[in-house]
Amino acid sequence: MEERMKEMQEQEKRVQTRLGKIRHKLAILSGKGGVGKSTVTANLAVALAQRGYRVGVLDADIHGPSIPKLLGVREGKLTTSRTGNQEIVPVEGPLGIKIVSLDFLLPSDETPVIWRGPMKMAAIRQFLADVAWGDLDFLLVDLPPGTGDEPLSIMQLIKDIDGVLMITAPSQVSQLVVKRAIGFTRELNVPLVGIVENMSGFICPKCGAEFNILGNGGGQKISEQLGIPFLGKIPIDQRICEDSDDGMPFIVKHAETPAAKAFMQVVEKVEKYLEQQRGRS
Amino acid sequence: MEERMKEMQEQEKRVQTRLGKIRHKLAILSGKGGVGKSTVTANLAVALAQRGYRVGVLDADIHGPSIPKLLGVREGKLTTSRTGNQEIVPVEGPLGIKIVSLDFLLPSDETPVIWRGPMKMAAIRQFLADVAWGDLDFLLVDLPPGTGDEPLSIMQLIKDIDGVLMITAPSQVSQLVVKRAIGFTRELNVPLVGIVENMSGFICPKCGAEFNILGNGGGQKISEQLGIPFLGKIPIDQRICEDSDDGMPFIVKHAETPAAKAFMQVVEKVEKYLEQQRGRS
Repeated sequence: MEERMKEMQEQEKRVQTRLGKIRHKLAILSGKGGVGKSTVTANLAVALAQRGYRVGVLDADIHGPSIPKLLGVREGKLTTSRTGNQEIVPVEGPLGIKIVSLDFLLPSDETPVIWRGPMKMAAIRQFLADVAWGDLDFLLVDLPPGTGDEPLSIMQLIKDIDGVLMITAPSQVSQLVVKRAIGFTRELNVPLVGIVENMSGFICPKCGAEFNILGNGGGQKISEQLGIPFLGKIPIDQRICEDSDDGMPFIVKHAETPAAKAFMQVVEKVEKYLEQQRGRS
Repeated sequence: MEERMKEMQEQEKRVQTRLGKIRHKLAILSGKGGVGKSTVTANLAVALAQRGYRVGVLDADIHGPSIPKLLGVREGKLTTSRTGNQEIVPVEGPLGIKIVSLDFLLPSDETPVIWRGPMKMAAIRQFLADVAWGDLDFLLVDLPPGTGDEPLSIMQLIKDIDGVLMITAPSQVSQLVVKRAIGFTRELNVPLVGIVENMSGFICPKCGAEFNILGNGGGQKISEQLGIPFLGKIPIDQRICEDSDDGMPFIVKHAETPAAKAFMQVVEKVEKYLEQQRGRS
Protein backbone atom coordinates (compact mmCIF):
# COMPACT_ATOMS: atom_id res chain seq x y z
CA MET A 1 0.00 0.00 0.00
CA GLU A 2 2.76 2.41 1.01
CA GLU A 3 4.75 1.43 -2.07
CA ARG A 4 1.75 2.11 -4.29
CA MET A 5 1.38 5.56 -2.73
CA LYS A 6 5.02 6.32 -3.35
CA GLU A 7 4.71 5.18 -6.95
CA MET A 8 1.71 7.48 -7.48
CA GLN A 9 3.56 10.42 -5.99
CA GLU A 10 6.52 9.81 -8.28
CA GLN A 11 4.22 9.59 -11.29
CA GLU A 12 2.57 12.86 -10.26
CA LYS A 13 6.03 14.45 -10.08
CA ARG A 14 6.87 13.20 -13.58
CA VAL A 15 3.57 14.65 -14.88
CA GLN A 16 4.39 18.06 -13.45
CA THR A 17 7.99 18.01 -14.75
CA ARG A 18 6.82 17.20 -18.27
CA LEU A 19 4.01 19.75 -18.21
CA GLY A 20 6.53 22.34 -17.03
CA LYS A 21 8.18 22.17 -20.45
CA ILE A 22 4.94 22.91 -22.30
CA ARG A 23 4.07 26.57 -22.65
CA HIS A 24 0.35 26.38 -23.33
CA LYS A 25 -2.16 23.66 -22.58
CA LEU A 26 -5.61 23.76 -24.10
CA ALA A 27 -8.42 21.22 -23.84
CA ILE A 28 -11.18 20.77 -26.38
CA LEU A 29 -14.46 19.83 -24.71
CA SER A 30 -18.14 19.73 -25.51
CA GLY A 31 -19.98 17.28 -23.31
CA LYS A 32 -21.85 16.27 -26.47
CA GLY A 33 -20.48 13.83 -29.01
CA GLY A 34 -20.37 14.27 -32.77
CA VAL A 35 -20.09 18.05 -32.77
CA GLY A 36 -16.57 18.12 -34.18
CA LYS A 37 -14.27 18.24 -31.15
CA SER A 38 -11.67 16.03 -32.83
CA THR A 39 -11.95 17.84 -36.16
CA VAL A 40 -11.43 21.17 -34.41
CA THR A 41 -8.49 19.74 -32.44
CA ALA A 42 -6.78 18.31 -35.54
CA ASN A 43 -7.22 21.49 -37.57
CA LEU A 44 -6.18 23.73 -34.68
CA ALA A 45 -3.02 21.65 -34.26
CA VAL A 46 -2.15 22.08 -37.94
CA ALA A 47 -3.00 25.80 -37.94
CA LEU A 48 -0.71 26.37 -34.95
CA ALA A 49 2.08 24.24 -36.45
CA GLN A 50 1.82 26.23 -39.68
CA ARG A 51 2.50 29.34 -37.65
CA GLY A 52 5.74 27.84 -36.46
CA TYR A 53 4.67 26.58 -33.04
CA ARG A 54 5.75 23.21 -31.68
CA VAL A 55 2.53 21.32 -31.12
CA GLY A 56 1.50 18.10 -29.37
CA VAL A 57 -1.92 16.44 -29.36
CA LEU A 58 -3.12 14.13 -26.62
CA ASP A 59 -6.11 12.13 -27.78
CA ALA A 60 -7.90 11.55 -24.48
CA ASP A 61 -10.88 9.88 -26.14
CA ILE A 62 -10.15 6.40 -24.86
CA HIS A 63 -13.15 4.59 -26.36
CA GLY A 64 -13.32 6.41 -29.69
CA PRO A 65 -9.88 7.75 -30.57
CA SER A 66 -10.01 9.54 -33.96
CA ILE A 67 -7.07 11.96 -33.98
CA PRO A 68 -4.69 9.57 -35.82
CA LYS A 69 -7.31 9.05 -38.56
CA LEU A 70 -7.93 12.81 -38.86
CA LEU A 71 -4.21 13.58 -39.10
CA GLY A 72 -3.48 10.72 -41.52
CA VAL A 73 -1.13 8.78 -39.22
CA ARG A 74 -3.10 5.66 -38.35
CA GLU A 75 -0.14 3.51 -39.37
CA GLY A 76 1.97 5.07 -36.62
CA LYS A 77 3.21 3.12 -33.64
CA LEU A 78 4.18 4.35 -30.21
CA THR A 79 7.66 3.19 -29.33
CA THR A 80 9.78 3.20 -26.21
CA SER A 81 12.92 5.29 -26.21
CA ARG A 82 16.20 3.38 -26.15
CA THR A 83 17.62 5.41 -23.33
CA GLY A 84 17.31 3.97 -19.85
CA ASN A 85 14.25 5.97 -18.79
CA GLN A 86 11.63 4.01 -20.75
CA GLU A 87 9.88 7.02 -22.19
CA ILE A 88 7.06 6.59 -24.70
CA VAL A 89 7.93 8.30 -27.99
CA PRO A 90 4.91 10.01 -29.59
CA VAL A 91 4.05 9.46 -33.25
CA GLU A 92 5.11 12.34 -35.46
CA GLY A 93 2.32 13.68 -37.64
CA PRO A 94 2.19 16.43 -40.29
CA LEU A 95 4.40 19.48 -39.60
CA GLY A 96 6.10 17.59 -36.77
CA ILE A 97 2.99 17.44 -34.58
CA LYS A 98 3.54 14.96 -31.75
CA ILE A 99 0.58 12.65 -31.29
CA VAL A 100 -0.39 10.18 -28.59
CA SER A 101 -3.58 8.16 -28.89
CA LEU A 102 -4.83 4.81 -27.71
CA ASP A 103 -5.57 4.10 -31.38
CA PHE A 104 -1.83 3.44 -31.88
CA LEU A 105 -1.96 0.62 -29.34
CA LEU A 106 -5.06 -1.25 -30.50
CA PRO A 107 -4.39 -4.43 -32.50
CA SER A 108 -7.34 -4.06 -34.92
CA ASP A 109 -10.16 -1.74 -35.96
CA GLU A 110 -12.66 -3.95 -34.19
CA THR A 111 -10.83 -4.00 -30.85
CA PRO A 112 -13.10 -2.31 -28.32
CA VAL A 113 -11.77 -0.49 -25.29
CA ILE A 114 -14.01 -1.88 -22.54
CA TRP A 115 -12.60 0.07 -19.64
CA ARG A 116 -14.24 1.39 -16.54
CA GLY A 117 -13.21 4.75 -15.05
CA PRO A 118 -10.11 3.80 -13.06
CA MET A 119 -8.45 2.18 -16.11
CA LYS A 120 -9.08 5.30 -18.16
CA MET A 121 -7.64 7.51 -15.44
CA ALA A 122 -4.52 5.35 -15.29
CA ALA A 123 -4.04 5.57 -19.06
CA ILE A 124 -4.39 9.35 -19.11
CA ARG A 125 -1.97 9.70 -16.20
CA GLN A 126 0.56 7.59 -18.02
CA PHE A 127 0.15 9.57 -21.24
CA LEU A 128 1.10 12.69 -19.31
CA ALA A 129 3.77 11.16 -17.07
CA ASP A 130 5.70 8.91 -19.41
CA VAL A 131 5.44 10.40 -22.91
CA ALA A 132 8.49 12.25 -24.22
CA TRP A 133 6.55 15.36 -25.19
CA GLY A 134 9.70 17.46 -24.90
CA ASP A 135 9.59 21.25 -25.22
CA LEU A 136 6.29 22.32 -26.76
CA ASP A 137 4.51 25.58 -27.35
CA PHE A 138 1.11 23.88 -27.31
CA LEU A 139 -0.41 20.69 -25.98
CA LEU A 140 -3.96 20.20 -27.22
CA VAL A 141 -6.08 17.66 -25.39
CA ASP A 142 -9.01 16.18 -27.29
CA LEU A 143 -11.59 15.08 -24.72
CA PRO A 144 -14.36 12.51 -25.18
CA PRO A 145 -18.07 13.38 -24.73
CA GLY A 146 -19.30 13.66 -21.16
CA THR A 147 -18.02 15.24 -17.98
CA GLY A 148 -16.77 12.10 -16.28
CA ASP A 149 -13.48 10.40 -15.64
CA GLU A 150 -11.45 11.58 -18.64
CA PRO A 151 -12.07 15.36 -18.49
CA LEU A 152 -11.96 15.26 -14.70
CA SER A 153 -8.56 13.54 -14.76
CA ILE A 154 -7.19 16.00 -17.28
CA MET A 155 -8.34 19.02 -15.30
CA GLN A 156 -6.90 17.64 -12.09
CA LEU A 157 -3.54 16.72 -13.65
CA ILE A 158 -3.01 19.84 -15.78
CA LYS A 159 -3.27 22.33 -12.94
CA ASP A 160 -2.15 25.34 -15.02
CA ILE A 161 -4.37 24.68 -18.04
CA ASP A 162 -4.68 27.85 -20.12
CA GLY A 163 -8.24 27.18 -21.05
CA VAL A 164 -10.97 25.08 -22.57
CA LEU A 165 -12.44 25.48 -26.06
CA MET A 166 -16.09 24.52 -25.93
CA ILE A 167 -17.51 23.10 -29.15
CA THR A 168 -21.22 22.90 -29.89
CA ALA A 169 -23.54 22.15 -32.75
CA PRO A 170 -26.31 24.75 -33.14
CA SER A 171 -29.27 22.51 -32.22
CA GLN A 172 -31.09 23.01 -28.93
CA VAL A 173 -30.39 19.42 -27.97
CA SER A 174 -26.65 20.10 -28.32
CA GLN A 175 -26.92 23.37 -26.43
CA LEU A 176 -28.53 21.58 -23.53
CA VAL A 177 -25.60 19.19 -23.16
CA VAL A 178 -22.96 21.85 -23.80
CA LYS A 179 -24.40 24.12 -21.11
CA ARG A 180 -23.77 21.37 -18.58
CA ALA A 181 -20.19 21.09 -19.85
CA ILE A 182 -19.77 24.82 -19.27
CA GLY A 183 -21.08 24.23 -15.74
CA PHE A 184 -18.36 21.59 -15.42
CA THR A 185 -15.57 24.09 -16.22
CA ARG A 186 -17.06 26.63 -13.82
CA GLU A 187 -17.38 24.15 -10.99
CA LEU A 188 -13.76 23.14 -11.51
CA ASN A 189 -12.67 26.74 -11.90
CA VAL A 190 -11.09 26.14 -15.30
CA PRO A 191 -10.86 29.15 -17.65
CA LEU A 192 -12.93 29.06 -20.85
CA VAL A 193 -11.33 30.39 -24.02
CA GLY A 194 -14.75 30.51 -25.65
CA ILE A 195 -17.38 28.71 -27.70
CA VAL A 196 -17.09 27.47 -31.27
CA GLU A 197 -20.34 26.81 -33.11
CA ASN A 198 -19.67 24.00 -35.54
CA MET A 199 -21.95 22.53 -38.25
CA SER A 200 -23.70 25.87 -38.47
CA GLY A 201 -25.92 26.16 -41.55
CA PHE A 202 -25.42 24.60 -44.99
CA ILE A 203 -25.23 26.33 -48.35
CA CYS A 204 -26.33 24.16 -51.28
CA PRO A 205 -23.27 23.96 -53.55
CA LYS A 206 -25.59 23.75 -56.57
CA CYS A 207 -28.26 26.40 -56.08
CA GLY A 208 -26.81 28.49 -53.26
CA ALA A 209 -29.88 28.15 -51.04
CA GLU A 210 -29.08 28.11 -47.33
CA PHE A 211 -30.44 25.52 -44.93
CA ASN A 212 -30.01 25.22 -41.22
CA ILE A 213 -29.79 21.46 -41.19
CA LEU A 214 -28.66 21.28 -37.59
CA GLY A 215 -29.90 24.74 -36.74
CA ASN A 216 -27.99 28.00 -36.65
CA GLY A 217 -26.96 30.42 -33.93
CA GLY A 218 -27.10 28.02 -30.98
CA GLY A 219 -23.49 28.57 -29.95
CA GLN A 220 -23.85 32.32 -30.16
CA LYS A 221 -26.96 32.10 -27.99
CA ILE A 222 -25.17 30.19 -25.23
CA SER A 223 -22.30 32.66 -25.41
CA GLU A 224 -24.70 35.56 -24.79
CA GLN A 225 -26.73 33.75 -22.14
CA LEU A 226 -23.74 32.65 -20.12
CA GLY A 227 -21.37 35.53 -20.85
CA ILE A 228 -18.68 33.52 -22.61
CA PRO A 229 -16.59 34.76 -25.56
CA PHE A 230 -17.84 33.58 -28.94
CA LEU A 231 -15.03 32.34 -31.16
CA GLY A 232 -16.93 31.81 -34.39
CA LYS A 233 -19.28 29.75 -36.51
CA ILE A 234 -18.06 27.06 -38.86
CA PRO A 235 -20.58 26.14 -41.55
CA ILE A 236 -21.33 22.57 -42.62
CA ASP A 237 -19.22 21.68 -45.63
CA GLN A 238 -19.17 18.24 -47.20
CA ARG A 239 -15.46 18.69 -47.92
CA ILE A 240 -14.69 18.82 -44.19
CA CYS A 241 -16.05 15.30 -43.82
CA GLU A 242 -14.26 14.09 -46.97
CA ASP A 243 -10.96 15.62 -45.90
CA SER A 244 -11.36 14.14 -42.41
CA ASP A 245 -11.92 10.71 -43.93
CA ASP A 246 -8.80 11.23 -46.06
CA GLY A 247 -6.73 12.17 -43.01
CA MET A 248 -6.10 15.64 -44.42
CA PRO A 249 -6.97 18.72 -42.33
CA PHE A 250 -9.46 20.76 -44.36
CA ILE A 251 -7.80 24.06 -43.51
CA VAL A 252 -4.87 22.81 -45.60
CA LYS A 253 -6.74 21.03 -48.37
CA HIS A 254 -9.52 23.59 -48.74
CA ALA A 255 -7.97 26.75 -47.34
CA GLU A 256 -10.13 29.00 -49.52
CA THR A 257 -13.53 27.79 -48.32
CA PRO A 258 -15.73 29.86 -45.97
CA ALA A 259 -15.39 27.04 -43.41
CA ALA A 260 -11.57 27.22 -43.45
CA LYS A 261 -11.66 31.01 -43.21
CA ALA A 262 -14.08 30.86 -40.28
CA PHE A 263 -11.77 28.34 -38.66
CA MET A 264 -8.71 30.57 -39.05
CA GLN A 265 -10.60 33.33 -37.24
CA VAL A 266 -11.10 30.94 -34.35
CA VAL A 267 -7.34 30.31 -34.32
CA GLU A 268 -6.64 34.04 -34.21
CA LYS A 269 -9.00 34.47 -31.30
CA VAL A 270 -7.28 31.65 -29.43
CA GLU A 271 -3.91 33.37 -29.95
CA LYS A 272 -5.33 36.67 -28.80
CA TYR A 273 -6.78 35.02 -25.70
CA LEU A 274 -3.38 33.60 -24.79
CA GLU A 275 -1.70 36.97 -25.29
CA GLN A 276 -4.19 38.58 -22.94
CA GLN A 277 -3.63 35.82 -20.39
CA ARG A 278 0.10 36.47 -20.58
CA GLY A 279 -0.52 40.16 -20.11
CA ARG A 280 -2.45 39.38 -16.93
CA SER A 281 0.06 37.05 -15.31
CA MET B 1 -18.79 -4.59 4.75
CA GLU B 2 -21.05 -7.61 5.13
CA GLU B 3 -24.04 -5.32 5.34
CA ARG B 4 -23.02 -3.55 2.14
CA MET B 5 -22.74 -6.92 0.38
CA LYS B 6 -26.18 -7.93 1.55
CA GLU B 7 -27.61 -4.61 0.38
CA MET B 8 -26.06 -5.10 -3.07
CA GLN B 9 -27.48 -8.61 -3.32
CA GLU B 10 -30.94 -7.35 -2.43
CA GLN B 11 -30.68 -4.59 -5.02
CA GLU B 12 -29.61 -7.13 -7.63
CA LYS B 13 -32.68 -9.22 -6.75
CA ARG B 14 -34.95 -6.18 -7.18
CA VAL B 15 -33.37 -5.49 -10.58
CA GLN B 16 -34.08 -9.02 -11.75
CA THR B 17 -37.67 -8.99 -10.39
CA ARG B 18 -38.45 -5.75 -12.23
CA LEU B 19 -36.78 -6.87 -15.45
CA GLY B 20 -38.82 -10.09 -15.26
CA LYS B 21 -41.94 -8.05 -15.93
CA ILE B 22 -40.52 -6.51 -19.11
CA ARG B 23 -40.93 -8.61 -22.24
CA HIS B 24 -38.26 -7.08 -24.45
CA LYS B 25 -35.16 -5.10 -23.63
CA LEU B 26 -33.25 -3.28 -26.33
CA ALA B 27 -30.22 -1.00 -26.00
CA ILE B 28 -29.27 1.71 -28.46
CA LEU B 29 -25.50 2.03 -28.79
CA SER B 30 -22.97 3.55 -31.12
CA GLY B 31 -19.69 4.19 -29.38
CA LYS B 32 -19.67 7.50 -31.27
CA GLY B 33 -21.52 10.58 -30.12
CA GLY B 34 -23.77 12.79 -32.20
CA VAL B 35 -24.93 10.11 -34.62
CA GLY B 36 -28.52 10.15 -33.45
CA LYS B 37 -28.77 7.46 -30.77
CA SER B 38 -31.22 9.48 -28.69
CA THR B 39 -33.26 10.56 -31.73
CA VAL B 40 -33.55 6.94 -32.83
CA THR B 41 -34.48 5.87 -29.29
CA ALA B 42 -37.18 8.55 -28.92
CA ASN B 43 -38.71 7.84 -32.31
CA LEU B 44 -38.53 4.07 -31.84
CA ALA B 45 -40.33 4.45 -28.50
CA VAL B 46 -43.13 6.42 -30.13
CA ALA B 47 -43.38 4.06 -33.11
CA LEU B 48 -43.74 1.07 -30.78
CA ALA B 49 -46.24 2.88 -28.56
CA GLN B 50 -48.29 3.77 -31.66
CA ARG B 51 -48.51 0.07 -32.39
CA GLY B 52 -50.08 -0.51 -29.00
CA TYR B 53 -47.06 -1.70 -27.05
CA ARG B 54 -46.36 -0.55 -23.50
CA VAL B 55 -43.00 1.18 -23.69
CA GLY B 56 -40.41 2.45 -21.21
CA VAL B 57 -37.26 4.45 -21.94
CA LEU B 58 -34.24 4.49 -19.67
CA ASP B 59 -31.96 7.41 -20.53
CA ALA B 60 -28.59 5.99 -19.47
CA ASP B 61 -26.69 9.01 -20.79
CA ILE B 62 -25.72 10.37 -17.40
CA HIS B 63 -23.66 13.37 -18.56
CA GLY B 64 -25.80 14.43 -21.52
CA PRO B 65 -29.38 13.24 -20.99
CA SER B 66 -31.56 14.34 -23.95
CA ILE B 67 -34.52 11.94 -23.99
CA PRO B 68 -36.85 14.26 -21.98
CA LYS B 69 -36.11 17.12 -24.42
CA LEU B 70 -36.70 14.88 -27.44
CA LEU B 71 -40.01 13.60 -26.06
CA GLY B 72 -41.19 17.02 -24.92
CA VAL B 73 -41.35 16.25 -21.19
CA ARG B 74 -38.52 18.32 -19.74
CA GLU B 75 -40.92 19.76 -17.17
CA GLY B 76 -41.52 16.29 -15.72
CA LYS B 77 -40.40 15.31 -12.24
CA LEU B 78 -39.61 11.90 -10.84
CA THR B 79 -41.66 11.24 -7.73
CA THR B 80 -41.65 8.59 -5.06
CA SER B 81 -44.68 6.37 -4.76
CA ARG B 82 -46.82 6.81 -1.66
CA THR B 83 -46.93 3.14 -0.86
CA GLY B 84 -44.41 1.86 1.64
CA ASN B 85 -41.89 0.53 -0.84
CA GLN B 86 -40.37 3.85 -1.88
CA GLU B 87 -40.49 3.19 -5.61
CA ILE B 88 -39.48 5.90 -8.09
CA VAL B 89 -42.40 6.73 -10.40
CA PRO B 90 -41.27 7.38 -13.98
CA VAL B 91 -42.43 10.45 -15.88
CA GLU B 92 -45.18 9.69 -18.36
CA GLY B 93 -44.46 10.93 -21.86
CA PRO B 94 -46.49 10.88 -25.10
CA LEU B 95 -48.64 7.74 -25.61
CA GLY B 96 -48.00 6.69 -22.03
CA ILE B 97 -44.28 6.10 -22.54
CA LYS B 98 -42.55 5.75 -19.15
CA ILE B 99 -39.37 7.78 -18.97
CA VAL B 100 -36.51 7.88 -16.49
CA SER B 101 -33.62 10.28 -17.00
CA LEU B 102 -31.14 12.10 -14.83
CA ASP B 103 -32.38 15.26 -16.57
CA PHE B 104 -35.47 15.14 -14.33
CA LEU B 105 -33.29 15.39 -11.23
CA LEU B 106 -30.97 18.24 -12.22
CA PRO B 107 -31.82 21.62 -10.70
CA SER B 108 -30.86 23.73 -13.74
CA ASP B 109 -29.73 23.51 -17.36
CA GLU B 110 -26.23 24.47 -16.35
CA THR B 111 -25.86 21.79 -13.67
CA PRO B 112 -23.09 19.47 -14.80
CA VAL B 113 -22.95 15.83 -13.81
CA ILE B 114 -19.33 15.47 -12.73
CA TRP B 115 -19.36 11.81 -11.84
CA ARG B 116 -16.68 9.18 -12.11
CA GLY B 117 -17.54 5.61 -13.12
CA PRO B 118 -18.71 4.14 -9.78
CA MET B 119 -21.30 6.91 -9.28
CA LYS B 120 -22.68 6.30 -12.76
CA MET B 121 -22.89 2.57 -12.13
CA ALA B 122 -24.79 3.21 -8.89
CA ALA B 123 -27.28 5.51 -10.64
CA ILE B 124 -27.95 3.00 -13.41
CA ARG B 125 -28.40 0.19 -10.90
CA GLN B 126 -30.90 2.27 -9.00
CA PHE B 127 -32.81 3.18 -12.17
CA LEU B 128 -33.29 -0.52 -12.79
CA ALA B 129 -33.84 -1.63 -9.20
CA ASP B 130 -36.10 1.04 -7.78
CA VAL B 131 -38.17 2.45 -10.65
CA ALA B 132 -41.78 1.30 -10.90
CA TRP B 133 -41.51 0.27 -14.55
CA GLY B 134 -44.42 -2.13 -14.11
CA ASP B 135 -45.43 -4.51 -16.90
CA LEU B 136 -43.89 -3.41 -20.16
CA ASP B 137 -43.58 -4.82 -23.65
CA PHE B 138 -40.43 -2.84 -24.33
CA LEU B 139 -37.69 -1.17 -22.35
CA LEU B 140 -35.39 0.90 -24.56
CA VAL B 141 -32.07 1.94 -23.08
CA ASP B 142 -30.38 4.97 -24.62
CA LEU B 143 -26.63 4.63 -24.00
CA PRO B 144 -24.02 7.40 -23.99
CA PRO B 145 -21.03 7.40 -26.38
CA GLY B 146 -18.18 5.08 -25.47
CA THR B 147 -17.86 1.51 -24.28
CA GLY B 148 -17.15 2.23 -20.64
CA ASP B 149 -19.03 2.16 -17.37
CA GLU B 150 -22.58 2.88 -18.55
CA PRO B 151 -22.94 0.32 -21.38
CA LEU B 152 -20.94 -2.20 -19.38
CA SER B 153 -23.26 -1.82 -16.37
CA ILE B 154 -26.36 -2.14 -18.55
CA MET B 155 -25.10 -5.30 -20.27
CA GLN B 156 -24.18 -6.86 -16.94
CA LEU B 157 -27.49 -6.00 -15.27
CA ILE B 158 -29.85 -6.86 -18.14
CA LYS B 159 -28.71 -10.43 -18.57
CA ASP B 160 -31.46 -11.39 -21.03
CA ILE B 161 -31.18 -8.34 -23.27
CA ASP B 162 -32.85 -9.03 -26.63
CA GLY B 163 -30.33 -7.07 -28.58
CA VAL B 164 -28.45 -3.90 -29.38
CA LEU B 165 -29.26 -1.46 -32.17
CA MET B 166 -26.03 0.01 -33.46
CA ILE B 167 -26.28 3.54 -34.85
CA THR B 168 -23.66 5.07 -37.10
CA ALA B 169 -23.17 8.11 -39.27
CA PRO B 170 -21.80 7.26 -42.73
CA SER B 171 -18.38 8.92 -42.37
CA GLN B 172 -15.24 6.79 -42.09
CA VAL B 173 -14.39 8.45 -38.79
CA SER B 174 -17.75 7.28 -37.38
CA GLN B 175 -17.31 3.81 -38.82
CA LEU B 176 -14.00 3.49 -37.04
CA VAL B 177 -15.56 4.16 -33.64
CA VAL B 178 -18.68 2.10 -34.32
CA LYS B 179 -16.63 -0.93 -35.31
CA ARG B 180 -15.09 -0.92 -31.86
CA ALA B 181 -18.58 -0.73 -30.33
CA ILE B 182 -19.52 -3.82 -32.37
CA GLY B 183 -16.41 -5.48 -30.94
CA PHE B 184 -17.76 -4.54 -27.52
CA THR B 185 -21.05 -6.40 -28.09
CA ARG B 186 -19.19 -9.41 -29.43
CA GLU B 187 -16.78 -9.54 -26.53
CA LEU B 188 -19.72 -9.39 -24.12
CA ASN B 189 -21.69 -11.89 -26.18
CA VAL B 190 -24.66 -9.55 -26.57
CA PRO B 191 -26.86 -10.10 -29.65
CA LEU B 192 -26.93 -7.36 -32.29
CA VAL B 193 -30.26 -6.52 -33.89
CA GLY B 194 -28.43 -4.67 -36.65
CA ILE B 195 -26.99 -1.39 -37.87
CA VAL B 196 -28.85 1.83 -38.63
CA GLU B 197 -27.10 4.34 -40.88
CA ASN B 198 -28.25 7.77 -39.79
CA MET B 199 -27.54 11.18 -41.38
CA SER B 200 -27.07 9.47 -44.72
CA GLY B 201 -27.06 11.88 -47.65
CA PHE B 202 -28.94 15.16 -48.01
CA ILE B 203 -31.36 16.20 -50.72
CA CYS B 204 -31.53 19.95 -51.30
CA PRO B 205 -35.17 20.88 -50.61
CA LYS B 206 -34.91 23.66 -53.22
CA CYS B 207 -33.15 22.15 -56.23
CA GLY B 208 -33.30 18.42 -55.47
CA ALA B 209 -29.55 17.91 -55.83
CA GLU B 210 -28.15 15.22 -53.54
CA PHE B 211 -25.12 15.74 -51.35
CA ASN B 212 -23.35 13.32 -49.08
CA ILE B 213 -22.58 15.84 -46.39
CA LEU B 214 -21.46 13.25 -43.86
CA GLY B 215 -20.87 10.58 -46.48
CA ASN B 216 -23.18 7.80 -47.59
CA GLY B 217 -23.14 4.03 -47.31
CA GLY B 218 -20.82 3.73 -44.32
CA GLY B 219 -23.28 1.74 -42.21
CA GLN B 220 -24.03 -0.62 -45.06
CA LYS B 221 -20.31 -1.16 -45.54
CA ILE B 222 -19.77 -2.16 -41.90
CA SER B 223 -22.79 -4.46 -42.09
CA GLU B 224 -21.25 -6.28 -45.07
CA GLN B 225 -17.73 -6.34 -43.64
CA LEU B 226 -18.75 -7.69 -40.27
CA GLY B 227 -21.76 -9.77 -41.28
CA ILE B 228 -24.38 -7.83 -39.31
CA PRO B 229 -27.97 -7.21 -40.47
CA PHE B 230 -28.51 -3.78 -42.03
CA LEU B 231 -31.66 -2.11 -40.76
CA GLY B 232 -31.76 0.90 -43.03
CA LYS B 233 -30.52 4.34 -43.96
CA ILE B 234 -32.10 7.51 -42.63
CA PRO B 235 -31.32 10.59 -44.72
CA ILE B 236 -30.42 13.98 -43.22
CA ASP B 237 -33.53 16.11 -42.95
CA GLN B 238 -33.56 19.53 -41.37
CA ARG B 239 -37.03 18.80 -40.02
CA ILE B 240 -35.65 15.99 -37.85
CA CYS B 241 -33.50 18.52 -36.02
CA GLU B 242 -36.35 21.05 -35.78
CA ASP B 243 -38.80 18.45 -34.49
CA SER B 244 -36.22 17.21 -31.99
CA ASP B 245 -35.75 20.75 -30.72
CA ASP B 246 -39.54 21.06 -30.43
CA GLY B 247 -39.78 17.82 -28.43
CA MET B 248 -41.92 16.24 -31.12
CA PRO B 249 -40.83 12.91 -32.65
CA PHE B 250 -40.44 13.49 -36.40
CA ILE B 251 -42.13 10.22 -37.31
CA VAL B 252 -45.31 11.76 -35.89
CA LYS B 253 -44.88 15.34 -37.08
CA HIS B 254 -43.47 14.50 -40.51
CA ALA B 255 -44.73 10.98 -41.12
CA GLU B 256 -44.75 11.44 -44.90
CA THR B 257 -41.07 12.32 -45.34
CA PRO B 258 -38.54 9.83 -46.78
CA ALA B 259 -36.73 9.96 -43.42
CA ALA B 260 -39.84 8.92 -41.47
CA LYS B 261 -40.59 6.15 -43.98
CA ALA B 262 -37.02 4.88 -43.74
CA PHE B 263 -37.37 4.94 -40.00
CA MET B 264 -40.58 2.90 -40.02
CA GLN B 265 -38.77 0.23 -42.02
CA VAL B 266 -36.20 0.05 -39.24
CA VAL B 267 -39.04 -0.45 -36.74
CA GLU B 268 -40.47 -3.29 -38.83
CA LYS B 269 -37.09 -4.98 -38.97
CA VAL B 270 -36.76 -4.72 -35.21
CA GLU B 271 -40.19 -6.38 -34.79
CA LYS B 272 -39.22 -9.12 -37.25
CA TYR B 273 -35.97 -9.72 -35.38
CA LEU B 274 -37.86 -10.18 -32.12
CA GLU B 275 -40.33 -12.58 -33.73
CA GLN B 276 -37.45 -14.67 -35.02
CA GLN B 277 -35.84 -14.63 -31.58
CA ARG B 278 -39.10 -15.89 -30.08
CA GLY B 279 -39.27 -18.62 -32.71
CA ARG B 280 -35.82 -19.77 -31.66
CA SER B 281 -36.36 -19.89 -27.93
